[in-house]
Amino acid sequence: MDFEAFFKSELDGLHEEGRYRVFADLERQRGQFPRATRYTENGSHDVTVWCSNDYLGMGQNQAVVEAMKSTIDHCGAGAGGTRNISGTNHYHVLLEQELADLHGKESALIFTSGYISNWATLGTLGQKIPGLIIFSDALNHASMIEGIRYAKCERVIWKHNDLKDLEAKLKAADPKAPKLIAFESVYSMDGDIAPINEICDLADRYGAMTYLDEVHAVGMYGPRGGGVAEREGIMDRLTIIEGTLGKAFGVMGGYITASTALCDFIRSFASGFIFTTALPPSLAAGAVASIRHLKTSQIERFAHQERVRRLRSLLDARGIPHMPNPSHIVPVMVGDAAKCKWISDILLDNFNIYVQPINYPTVPKKTERLRITPTPLHSDADIDHLVGALHQLWSRCALARAVA
Amino acid sequence: MDFEAFFKSELDGLHEEGRYRVFADLERQRGQFPRATRYTENGSHDVTVWCSNDYLGMGQNQAVVEAMKSTIDHCGAGAGGTRNISGTNHYHVLLEQELADLHGKESALIFTSGYISNWATLGTLGQKIPGLIIFSDALNHASMIEGIRYAKCERVIWKHNDLKDLEAKLKAADPKAPKLIAFESVYSMDGDIAPINEICDLADRYGAMTYLDEVHAVGMYGPRGGGVAEREGIMDRLTIIEGTLGKAFGVMGGYITASTALCDFIRSFASGFIFTTALPPSLAAGAVASIRHLKTSQIERFAHQERVRRLRSLLDARGIPHMPNPSHIVPVMVGDAAKCKWISDILLDNFNIYVQPINYPTVPKKTERLRITPTPLHSDADIDHLVGALHQLWSRCALARAVA
Ligand SMILES: Cc1ncc(COP(=O)(O)O)c(C=O)c1O
Ligand SMILES: Cc1ncc(COP(=O)(O)O)c(C=O)c1O
Repeated sequence: MDFEAFFKSELDGLHEEGRYRVFADLERQRGQFPRATRYTENGSHDVTVWCSNDYLGMGQNQAVVEAMKSTIDHCGAGAGGTRNISGTNHYHVLLEQELADLHGKESALIFTSGYISNWATLGTLGQKIPGLIIFSDALNHASMIEGIRYAKCERVIWKHNDLKDLEAKLKAADPKAPKLIAFESVYSMDGDIAPINEICDLADRYGAMTYLDEVHAVGMYGPRGGGVAEREGIMDRLTIIEGTLGKAFGVMGGYITASTALCDFIRSFASGFIFTTALPPSLAAGAVASIRHLKTSQIERFAHQERVRRLRSLLDARGIPHMPNPSHIVPVMVGDAAKCKWISDILLDNFNIYVQPINYPTVPKKTERLRITPTPLHSDADIDHLVGALHQLWSRCALARAVA
Repeated sequence: MDFEAFFKSELDGLHEEGRYRVFADLERQRGQFPRATRYTENGSHDVTVWCSNDYLGMGQNQAVVEAMKSTIDHCGAGAGGTRNISGTNHYHVLLEQELADLHGKESALIFTSGYISNWATLGTLGQKIPGLIIFSDALNHASMIEGIRYAKCERVIWKHNDLKDLEAKLKAADPKAPKLIAFESVYSMDGDIAPINEICDLADRYGAMTYLDEVHAVGMYGPRGGGVAEREGIMDRLTIIEGTLGKAFGVMGGYITASTALCDFIRSFASGFIFTTALPPSLAAGAVASIRHLKTSQIERFAHQERVRRLRSLLDARGIPHMPNPSHIVPVMVGDAAKCKWISDILLDNFNIYVQPINYPTVPKKTERLRITPTPLHSDADIDHLVGALHQLWSRCALARAVA
């Protein structure tokens, strides 16, 4: 077989469908966020980033940056081993305590990413608990889907955020089988929010564990940044809360929080936790600083929500169609992969605005979009400039307007 | 089902088998490596780490540390997104160039860990190339095994480092089926080295791609730290060379290097690459500094090999049994999980020497061991102290001695 020809022809297919991904080569500028330098073949220029998941700008927070730098001074660059073999650093221990406290759980366990926390935890539970059935929301993130596949246990997919469908499926399953319901709070691409409390009611009724991915909510919702479940006062109803350190907390890494026995079980059996180098001490220390800051400071959360409202109202005033939702994610719908990329390219080249086009397989075909994420650090002028640019583009070409 | 009771009884099983893992809570001391502070319930004390995979002490190298700190100053804490959605930083681009150059390949692709590079690359190749058969060495690392399982393609396991068995299995397979041979250079637990050139001969004969994990060799072997394949002058014979940034390079992250089409293919299709926050710019910058340093400096590699030889000869002089091998890994064999843990505890509590016991499932049962990793920074006195302590323990209890 001619392997090179095979790879090339697969890539050609992506080009033809208009969904070949070109990464913007950026240099973030601390203190200037959301500004960044973009490198191109013809030199570099400044852009305003409108699609970062550093939702609160914590990546440039003074306490976070200082914690990271002083930990590098103190402990050096990497962890030097897996968690078991010399790689557990005191900052990992502190971080796990901080996270358990954040979610009101007995324990926490950190992973190298949110992706790995979902994959390793769901995979291990499904492999080890005899007869487990995992009830998975149809729009769960790729990392949860892969984890459930990895589990090789029975899986039942229920319609997205649909309590009736979930209940029907729980009822249809063997009453004696152990069960787990896996879902997210804020869904990252549509920005809608799950009916967490009602899902927990069903879990109680059918004796199921609950697994909640709060990756797009931690830091941003709840009085201490514990996520949507904290805001609703129901963190104790969830068996496992999973999150990331790489989005609102501004660093990198993932975690679960749960009972001590459950965390210890995953710690002891999950391949994706055991057989990999631990997070550098500096990342753990930076995450601790970020979580502590957001446990008490409301400024970032309030400003964030206010910026989101302002952007939405200006988009409405111009009739630019965006998906309504109760979160901080503003999906401006385009519905075509090539058009979406074209708009994004013009925004970047002519307006110095960077919003990556979101295409299949991240979202279903025909729902291609610009996924816009305002942060507390986007100014009024930034918002005006973005909405003005979108308005020009929507005027110039045959893009559907929302009915005012 | 009583989930808590289930988790607890599984953990009880580990306790009974003597292989429940207790992580040493360490604080690395930059400038003092291999010294670290160990935290316990009763306070803290200094220990000498003898089981780190920061093989060359690059975690405290000045250039690495400065690169990380200045990049944090310049770019902030995290990447702020997945590689596709605002998370590609200029340092990622530079790092990929540096890695491609290191291994003499057209391109490179970085991942959040070596674990994910193996899992995502092998999984994606096996899923996407119709009819691919993966020929996997029996002692391949967990991350490769999981990747091959994930691929759900046909897999053939050949006897560890056994060319005859590999050839027999290649010959027995459908000649028209596309094939890939997956193996490591230095095997991390036994420290033996694969016959890379001969495996490439077989690959040529049977039209197979080759996938070489050089995780325990990059930085340490070859005139520029390109690994065992560089030392033997045969990097160009391998289709894919995979490595980590978290061991000899002292930071964190993983990578593959290969043809441009192959890297672009994995970049475009691998879930574990696409759907996860990118490495922080500071880690990428630190890795670039580390790789550049080890491309020209031989001091660390020479000193490393010399320390390994000295330790081995002193162990031999005392008759302490260690597995002979041509690498830098010194496995002192114990052969029993509880005894292995007991020795490790005494070394830690009475001698301030930290060597984690290596038990099942990391190694097969009855081959439990102390896996000792000398670094250029272990002094003569450190080595004498370690060998003296082992000698006392071997004298005190019924542990087999090697015949002198
Ligand atoms: C819902 C969800 N869960 C998990 C992840 C993975 O988290 P991380 O980026 O920390 O790997 C993501 C995105 O990256 C996500 O959107
Ligand atoms: C052979 C081998 N491959 C891959 C890995 C994973 O690399 P990383 O620690 O960067 O995840 C390891 C150990 O951790 C290993 O021993």
